[in-house]
Amino acid sequence: MASPELEKQITLDEIVDLCTRRGFFFQSGRIYGGLSGFYDYGPLGIELKRNVLNSWWRWFVELRDDVYGLDGSIITHPRTWEASGHVESFLDILVTCTRCGSEYRADALLEELGIKVSDLSAAGLARAIKDHGVKCPACGGELSDPKPFNLMFTTTVGPRREQPLVAYLRPETAQLIFINFKNIVFAMGATLPFGIAQYGRAFRNEISPRNFLFRLREFNQLEIEYFVNPKKLNSCPYFDEVRSLEIQLLPAEVQEKGESGVKVIKLGEAVESGYISTVWHAYWVGESLRWLHSIGLDPKKLRVREHVKSELAHYAVQTFDIEYYFPYMGWKEIVGISNRSDYDLRRHQEYSGESLHIVDDGEKVIPYVIEPSFGLERIILALLTESYTREKGRIYLRLKPSIAPFKVAVFPLVKRDGLDVKAREIYRVLREHLRTYYDEDGSIGRRYAKADEIGVPYCVTVDGQTLAENTVTVRFRDTREQVRVPVEKLVEVLQSLIRNDVVALDRKAQIPLLEKAEVQGR
Amino acid sequence: MASPELEKQITLDEIVDLCTRRGFFFQSGRIYGGLSGFYDYGPLGIELKRNVLNSWWRWFVELRDDVYGLDGSIITHPRTWEASGHVESFLDILVTCTRCGSEYRADALLEELGIKVSDLSAAGLARAIKDHGVKCPACGGELSDPKPFNLMFTTTVGPRREQPLVAYLRPETAQLIFINFKNIVFAMGATLPFGIAQYGRAFRNEISPRNFLFRLREFNQLEIEYFVNPKKLNSCPYFDEVRSLEIQLLPAEVQEKGESGVKVIKLGEAVESGYISTVWHAYWVGESLRWLHSIGLDPKKLRVREHVKSELAHYAVQTFDIEYYFPYMGWKEIVGISNRSDYDLRRHQEYSGESLHIVDDGEKVIPYVIEPSFGLERIILALLTESYTREKGRIYLRLKPSIAPFKVAVFPLVKRDGLDVKAREIYRVLREHLRTYYDEDGSIGRRYAKADEIGVPYCVTVDGQTLAENTVTVRFRDTREQVRVPVEKLVEVLQSLIRNDVVALDRKAQIPLLEKAEVQGR
Repeated sequence: MASPELEKQITLDEIVDLCTRRGFFFQSGRIYGGLSGFYDYGPLGIELKRNVLNSWWRWFVELRDDVYGLDGSIITHPRTWEASGHVESFLDILVTCTRCGSEYRADALLEELGIKVSDLSAAGLARAIKDHGVKCPACGGELSDPKPFNLMFTTTVGPRREQPLVAYLRPETAQLIFINFKNIVFAMGATLPFGIAQYGRAFRNEISPRNFLFRLREFNQLEIEYFVNPKKLNSCPYFDEVRSLEIQLLPAEVQEKGESGVKVIKLGEAVESGYISTVWHAYWVGESLRWLHSIGLDPKKLRVREHVKSELAHYAVQTFDIEYYFPYMGWKEIVGISNRSDYDLRRHQEYSGESLHIVDDGEKVIPYVIEPSFGLERIILALLTESYTREKGRIYLRLKPSIAPFKVAVFPLVKRDGLDVKAREIYRVLREHLRTYYDEDGSIGRRYAKADEIGVPYCVTVDGQTLAENTVTVRFRDTREQVRVPVEKLVEVLQSLIRNDVVALDRKAQIPLLEKAEVQGR
Repeated sequence: MASPELEKQITLDEIVDLCTRRGFFFQSGRIYGGLSGFYDYGPLGIELKRNVLNSWWRWFVELRDDVYGLDGSIITHPRTWEASGHVESFLDILVTCTRCGSEYRADALLEELGIKVSDLSAAGLARAIKDHGVKCPACGGELSDPKPFNLMFTTTVGPRREQPLVAYLRPETAQLIFINFKNIVFAMGATLPFGIAQYGRAFRNEISPRNFLFRLREFNQLEIEYFVNPKKLNSCPYFDEVRSLEIQLLPAEVQEKGESGVKVIKLGEAVESGYISTVWHAYWVGESLRWLHSIGLDPKKLRVREHVKSELAHYAVQTFDIEYYFPYMGWKEIVGISNRSDYDLRRHQEYSGESLHIVDDGEKVIPYVIEPSFGLERIILALLTESYTREKGRIYLRLKPSIAPFKVAVFPLVKRDGLDVKAREIYRVLREHLRTYYDEDGSIGRRYAKADEIGVPYCVTVDGQTLAENTVTVRFRDTREQVRVPVEKLVEVLQSLIRNDVVALDRKAQIPLLEKAEVQGR
């Protein structure tokens, strides 16, 4: 880990710069002046995205026998969002400058000016704007009365020119799961407790998108709705797997007292002392944290913050955010884990007229739902921030080998004497097994620097000795140490390094294959 | 392969029924009466989708060094679609019944009535409707004058209540590639020839969505835009890999003469005789076919049909569709491979004012583009159709092991005597390595029947002998043959079967591991 001094200096601008320069993300529609709140994943970004999605799917679907996958449509039947409450309640409060027309989210505007508001209704915000004499920050003009603004994007389906069908782009993937609940119970024979998992895009017409990947208008969610008999919210057969996991907890009561100190507490104790009201909820907090740790986020930079009453969503009984500490913007939500009660299924039952119960222990039950909801782009921003390292004049991404976009880069030391031919040959073998690229352009130093910046954990270099002995050097990204490995052992050695997450030689004990491969220090 | 007699009897209804019953696809918004043209992927469908996408990404991106990935946004800058020509030209011709309000795509309505029309403009279609006295099929009422209808879904971005920014949901993924062309050249140092690949959703407000997954309003495309110096359209270094591939070709000239006979011809000859006008175009036809073969589509059911002049898109110089033979609806496009010339880059250059050239051989060049464009849901429908097999009273999906949603199912013969405990133990080991599910409900026959219907190639059953000898039976889906395999060899044997695509014992020569595992006939 880099030292705290260095990390404090990391800015969002540096990360944006690296992401654009190296092909992780591009502002969408840049050649037309850009579309605010939209980013395109570049060649490196899509590989990172695929790795994070695949890791999540493996952890929460493939390695479990109680979670089913789903992939619903983006344009959705409008009744879905009437039932869910989004048509009525998915609002921000908008104010407009009566002079220059600039538009602001009222609560965000007040927060930026350091004005604390407890009543976040349109009326409450209007009062605060009046009381503090807030003017337009752009031109100093008078602000309009605050008005609710629904964040859902709308479109119309079918020609139906007379009576167009207004439909919504889903503002969350969750509702697709609720409206497919019965389909999955029937088709899969699902019994309680079980979950349905889905990843995909969601759309929110944010008034002020900002902070690069953090607040987007189009983004990806990874959500699980986990259905439990409401009488069994405290009987989770898997809880022992996370019971002794220590978390940094910031309960609602602490925040309501205006305090900010976190409690370091084991999940088991968090339930016993009543901070987390059900065992199943605590279990999903734990599982979510364990997965975040597995992809490389530092447990010390993750805290679990309970929502205070005034910020709870209309459907939520209790919600915990997992927040990551971004050095340039502080603690921010990257995952939310809500107890949504039976709100959604009951509402869809009411609006559709179709019974959404399930039989458990011989009784008809509308299950409760615990929902871990992950924001993909926020997690990617956390990973980039966590791994971004400036050290002795070089920049590298300390991504875990399993998450890194490319696992291996293959270079000829120089582009002649047959070294390039041999290097291409090795590249073609490696790419069958591992995500690999080949690079022969520019100096070897420049090629290492590029590989470092895109987080390639292992660089394979073909040099004069390769032709004589059929060995190559393998360079470790984080330490720049090098070892020589026989070409015929290369796939096996690299696979073993990745499997064991080895990024430096001083963990040699974990690299049995490397020892067989006759390691030499550089 | 099932006999042709049996296959003729396969109906689309049967496939829809299996897909709903077994959790491949659900009509989107069904509990609210359904949303026409939208489907949700169920637990089986999403696994199938993931396998097809991963196979495509591996084939066209990971195993090549000349193709970069991209993943652009769905809501896109409106200038994109002005430049591309979609705002002006992405139209169908709509007629409305003046009595009952039913709406029809004019060309489709005439085609259904067996009326051939050569002039597909609004005026031409109006004339045909008048000449043939066509009335509303629903109520017999008079039809309105045909009018153009743009198929793009629109939405508005940002609050901007005064002057909303109208944006489009992308009707094709391709344009995101064109507007990112320069970003990728800069970030990746790309040099000609190279491609950019992207998969993701596209949206078309079809007047009449139909045929299950075939014509959807929301669907997934997998597209490559491959950029070539216009002077080098005939110098493709990879052409030898496909030169001798035999294709069933239906050239434009044959269709224009009103004939329908396909030519069986090698790709090399198709170029030499001028049917395919450039070598790079022929190469991408070949690569696309090879990938379709690799996922299990029968080469005999794939033909390559050239677009006749009147159906060429506004951007296309020459286009070939790869069509699959669906027994219930005939030959239908599943892939389109176009030579888009330099149309798109030139238009974006003109509309953005940004130079979109690249330097090749010391000259500034606007490259030509060859575009293989795959329709994911159409390919999935082809795979389901190809693999759907009714045989001796049972139904099974003959999916290739690499494409099947689940590779293995684990059953205890009965749910007692410790067989279930042992079976769960084996399941937990297998799922670490292979997509596996566990099933103990109902009779063993019912469990095999379910596994067959969802295309599981190998069922592992734990029986009395397992406890005594630590062996299990492995049953082959297509032949129902069984072999006994020692538990400690199970992962290795199954991995080898999948790798070698083994679905029956009579291909024993390809299963070295199975022989080691002491094969016994049942």
